[in-house]
Amino acid sequence: MPFVARIQNAALLGKVMTAEQAAELIPVGANVGMSGFTGAGYPKAVPQALAARLAALHASGQTHARIGLWTGASTAPELDGALAQAQGIEMRLPYQSDPTCRKLINAGQMLYTDMHLSHVAQAAWFGFLGKLDVAVVEVAGILPDGRLIPSTSVGNNKTWLDQADKIILEVNLHQDPALEGMHDIYYGTQLPPHRQAIPLVKTSDRIGQPHLQCDPSKVIAVVVTDHADRNAAFDPPSEVSSRIAGHIIEFLTHEVKVGRLPNELLPLQSGVGNVANAVLAGLNQGPFENLTAYTEVLQDGMLDMLRSGKLAFASATALSLSPDAAAEFKGNIDFYRQRIVLRSQEISNHPELVRRLGVIAMNAMIEAEIYGNVNSTHIMGSSIMNGIGGSGDFARNAYLSIFMTPSVAKEGRISCIVPMVSHHDHTEHDVQVIVSEQGLADLRGLAPTQRAKLIMERCAHPSFRPQLLDYMERARHSSAGLHTPHMMDEALSWHSRYLKTGQM
Amino acid sequence: MPFVARIQNAALLGKVMTAEQAAELIPVGANVGMSGFTGAGYPKAVPQALAARLAALHASGQTHARIGLWTGASTAPELDGALAQAQGIEMRLPYQSDPTCRKLINAGQMLYTDMHLSHVAQAAWFGFLGKLDVAVVEVAGILPDGRLIPSTSVGNNKTWLDQADKIILEVNLHQDPALEGMHDIYYGTQLPPHRQAIPLVKTSDRIGQPHLQCDPSKVIAVVVTDHADRNAAFDPPSEVSSRIAGHIIEFLTHEVKVGRLPNELLPLQSGVGNVANAVLAGLNQGPFENLTAYTEVLQDGMLDMLRSGKLAFASATALSLSPDAAAEFKGNIDFYRQRIVLRSQEISNHPELVRRLGVIAMNAMIEAEIYGNVNSTHIMGSSIMNGIGGSGDFARNAYLSIFMTPSVAKEGRISCIVPMVSHHDHTEHDVQVIVSEQGLADLRGLAPTQRAKLIMERCAHPSFRPQLLDYMERARHSSAGLHTPHMMDEALSWHSRYLKTGQM
Repeated sequence: MPFVARIQNAALLGKVMTAEQAAELIPVGANVGMSGFTGAGYPKAVPQALAARLAALHASGQTHARIGLWTGASTAPELDGALAQAQGIEMRLPYQSDPTCRKLINAGQMLYTDMHLSHVAQAAWFGFLGKLDVAVVEVAGILPDGRLIPSTSVGNNKTWLDQADKIILEVNLHQDPALEGMHDIYYGTQLPPHRQAIPLVKTSDRIGQPHLQCDPSKVIAVVVTDHADRNAAFDPPSEVSSRIAGHIIEFLTHEVKVGRLPNELLPLQSGVGNVANAVLAGLNQGPFENLTAYTEVLQDGMLDMLRSGKLAFASATALSLSPDAAAEFKGNIDFYRQRIVLRSQEISNHPELVRRLGVIAMNAMIEAEIYGNVNSTHIMGSSIMNGIGGSGDFARNAYLSIFMTPSVAKEGRISCIVPMVSHHDHTEHDVQVIVSEQGLADLRGLAPTQRAKLIMERCAHPSFRPQLLDYMERARHSSAGLHTPHMMDEALSWHSRYLKTGQM
Repeated sequence: MPFVARIQNAALLGKVMTAEQAAELIPVGANVGMSGFTGAGYPKAVPQALAARLAALHASGQTHARIGLWTGASTAPELDGALAQAQGIEMRLPYQSDPTCRKLINAGQMLYTDMHLSHVAQAAWFGFLGKLDVAVVEVAGILPDGRLIPSTSVGNNKTWLDQADKIILEVNLHQDPALEGMHDIYYGTQLPPHRQAIPLVKTSDRIGQPHLQCDPSKVIAVVVTDHADRNAAFDPPSEVSSRIAGHIIEFLTHEVKVGRLPNELLPLQSGVGNVANAVLAGLNQGPFENLTAYTEVLQDGMLDMLRSGKLAFASATALSLSPDAAAEFKGNIDFYRQRIVLRSQEISNHPELVRRLGVIAMNAMIEAEIYGNVNSTHIMGSSIMNGIGGSGDFARNAYLSIFMTPSVAKEGRISCIVPMVSHHDHTEHDVQVIVSEQGLADLRGLAPTQRAKLIMERCAHPSFRPQLLDYMERARHSSAGLHTPHMMDEALSWHSRYLKTGQM
C-alpha cells in the first residue's frame, strides 16, 4: 500500500480508517479545528463524511446537530461547502469565502465571528473561544516519532493540534512528500506573562522546526486521501487591474527616488485575487530587483516572480495556486523549497513581525470613503462578503498600507468611493494610500478634509465625482463640525439608494 | 544663578536666552516638534512667545504666519492654547485635547491629523510627515556632554531631537532634578529593513539609557523656566464611575477564577479621566496584589496603588497628576524612582510589546454600537473631541480590550449605546468587552447578532433599551443581510435626531 511510506508511526498506522468511521468520532456540538487556508491544505474527506452524518441526523429528527467550525482561513467546497449545505455549522470562525456559508450567514442561519487572522491562535489558547474538542488536520506524512509533515498550508494547525482533546489526521497522498523542509513551525510562543521576543528579523529566517508536533495518544483516527487542493485559475489581469498596478508601481518608484524606500523595496504583502495578481504581474515586469515577500498567501504571481528571480524569497502561511501553477510548483519543488517558507498564521501575520520588517501591505477592499475609512467585509452594511482576513494585521503595522479597488462595481451602478463606508474595517488611522484605476491618493499625514479632496480627485470614477463633490460641499455648509464634515442623514444614502433602486 | 547647576555644558550655557529671543529663531511655516504628553513635560515659555510673535505678524498683515505643530500628545493652555488663540497652527498632530484647538479644528480653521501614538515617531523618521524643522523640548537638566535629563514626559522627544535641524531646549527648574534615572530611552530602533526585536519582556525592564542624546551643534537656544506642569485635579469617583469599576473588577475576578488570568492579572493599561481613575481606585481596594502597569500615562490612581503596594511597578511615557499628587510624588521621588519607568511613546505603546506583555487595556470611549464598534474621537460624526491617542495601540494588541462609558450623556439626552456609531475608531474585531454602569458585555468569540443582544441587555440605559430593541427587530425584518442587520436609512438616525432636536 502506497500510504504506508507516508505513515511511518506504527501506532498511528493502526488507526487508519475510513472518513466515515472517523466522522463518527466527532461529537455533535463539538468545536472542531480544521486545517485549511485559502483553499490549501484543508482536509478533503472527513468534512464531507461529517456533513453526510449530520445531514442524516437532521433527517432523523436531530435538527440541531451541528458543530463549531474553526479553520485557518477559507477552505473549499469539500469542507465549508459540504458542511454548510448540510446545515452542519453552528458557528464559523475566523474567515470564510464559501458561497453557501455566505448565504446562510446572511440569511441569519449560521453564526460567523470574523477575526484578525493573527489573533485566532492566541484567542483559542487563551480560552476565549471555548473549548476546542477535535482537530482535523491534513498532513503530507507522519514521521516514525509521530511528528507531522505539514501540507500546503500551516494556518492554525499547531494550535489546533496542541489545544484539541482529540486529533484526526488526513494523510493526503496527492501532496508532494518533498514539501518536507519548506515549513517553519515556531514553538516559542507562550501565554503571557511568559512571552519572549520572536527572533525573526528577515523574511527568510527560520526560527522553528520543519514539522508539527503531535501527541500520538490524542490521535483517534488517520484517514488517507489522494486529492488536489481547490486550485482555481486566475483571470488574466484586466485593464482596470493593470492600471491599478501601474499606479502602485509608479508610486513605489517615486518613493525609492525620494529615499523613502530602498531599491529592493521592503517585504511585500499582497492579498489574494485578480487585482493583487495584476500588481504582482506588474512588479514582475517592473524595475525592482531582489524583492522579498512576507505575506499570508503565495499565489501564482509570486511564483512567477520567484521563477523570474525578481523575488528572492517569500514567506507565507499557505499556497493558493492555479492548477497550472500547482503543477509547475510540484515539478520544481526543490527550487521553490530554497525560496519559500510556510509558517503558522500567527507568525505570518504577527503585528510584531509585520512592523519590524516594515512590510508594504497591498490589500483589496470593497469600498473606501472620502475620509479614508475602508470597508473590506460587508456589502451594503449588512451582508458579509468574506471577512477581514489578515488585512488588518498588515495594514495597521505596515510601513506602507495600500488599499486598492476598481472605482466602480456592478457595471458602474456602484461607486467604490462613497461619502461614508457602510461598514468600517480599517479606519482613517490605518489607511495610507488608496488606489483605483483612476489614480492613487497618498494620504500620509493629511487631515480628513485634505484626504477627501485627494480621494475624490484621484480615485473616484468621473461619473460619481460630481455627486461626491456635491456631498462634500453641502456637508461643509451644514455639518455640525468641520473636522470631518458629514450629514448624518445623508452619509449612508448612497447605500440606501442602491438597495432601493439598484443604482447609487 | 540657580540654573547653572542644571546646564552643565558650557557651550549650551552660552546659548541661554529669553523665550522671545528663542521664538524669533523659529521660521514661520516650520514644522515644530514640541515635547509634552498629557499636560506633562511640555515647554512652558517658548510656545507663548512664539504665539505672541505670530499674533504680531498677523497684526502686521502676515495673516498666514503659522507653524505645523507636532507633539507627544495633549499639552496645556501655555502651548496648544496659546498657539491656537494666536491662530498660529496650520497643522496639528498627533493628538490634542485643548478647547481652543478643538474649536478651530471643528470650525475648519485648523488642520488636524489624528494618529495612533505608537505610529508617530516612525512616521516622522520615515519622512511621511514632511521635514521636521525645529524641536522645542523641555528637560530637567543638561549634562556636561550635552545629554539631557528628561522631564515629566518622554513622548516623541528622542525622535524630535534626532530628526529636527534645530533644537531649542527649555530647562525647567521646577522639575525635580531627582527625576534623573527614572527614564529609559531606547536607542535600538532602526529603519526597516534593519530593525531588531525590542528586548523588553517585563514592565520593569530597562532596555535603554536614562538620558536623551542631543547633538549640541543643533541647539540654537536654551531657555530657562520655572513652572509647574498643568496639573489638574480629578473629580472624586462618581457613582456611575464606581459602578463601571465594580463591573470590571467582578469580571477580572471571574477571569482569574476560571484560569484565564493569573492572580496578579497582567500589565494594566488605563486611559486618563474620571472613569479610568475610578477603576484604579477600585483596584486599589480590590482583591488583586502585586499588579503591574504598562500604560501611557501615570495618573493619581496609579500613584495611590504604588503607594499602597497593590501596584508593584508601572511603565509609562508621562505623568499626569493633580497638584496634590504632584507634591506627593516630589516628596517621595526616591520611592517612586524604584517603581516607575518613563519611556518613549513608541515603546510605551508599541504593538510588539503590548502583545508580548499581554496587556489588559481599559479605555474610555464616546459611544459604542450594538455590534461592538467603538467611537473614541468624534461627536455626532463630524466634530473631533480629542483623538484616538493610544487606545488603538492597546486595544488591538491587548490580551483583553475593555471599553467603558456611562450609558448616557447630557443628562440622559444622548445614549452612548447606539445602532451605529457615528465614527469608527475601534472596529468589532478589536473590542472584547464593553462596560457601562448598567453592566458588562463580554463579546469574545461572538457573532454580531449575539453581541447586539448582550450589549443592549447589559450596557444600554433602560430608557433607550426599547428603542434599540425596536431598531434591531425592524432591522431583522428589513435588512438586506442578517449577518449585521442594519437599515442604511436609519442607522445614523439617532445622531441626526439629536442634532435636530437635542435628544436621541
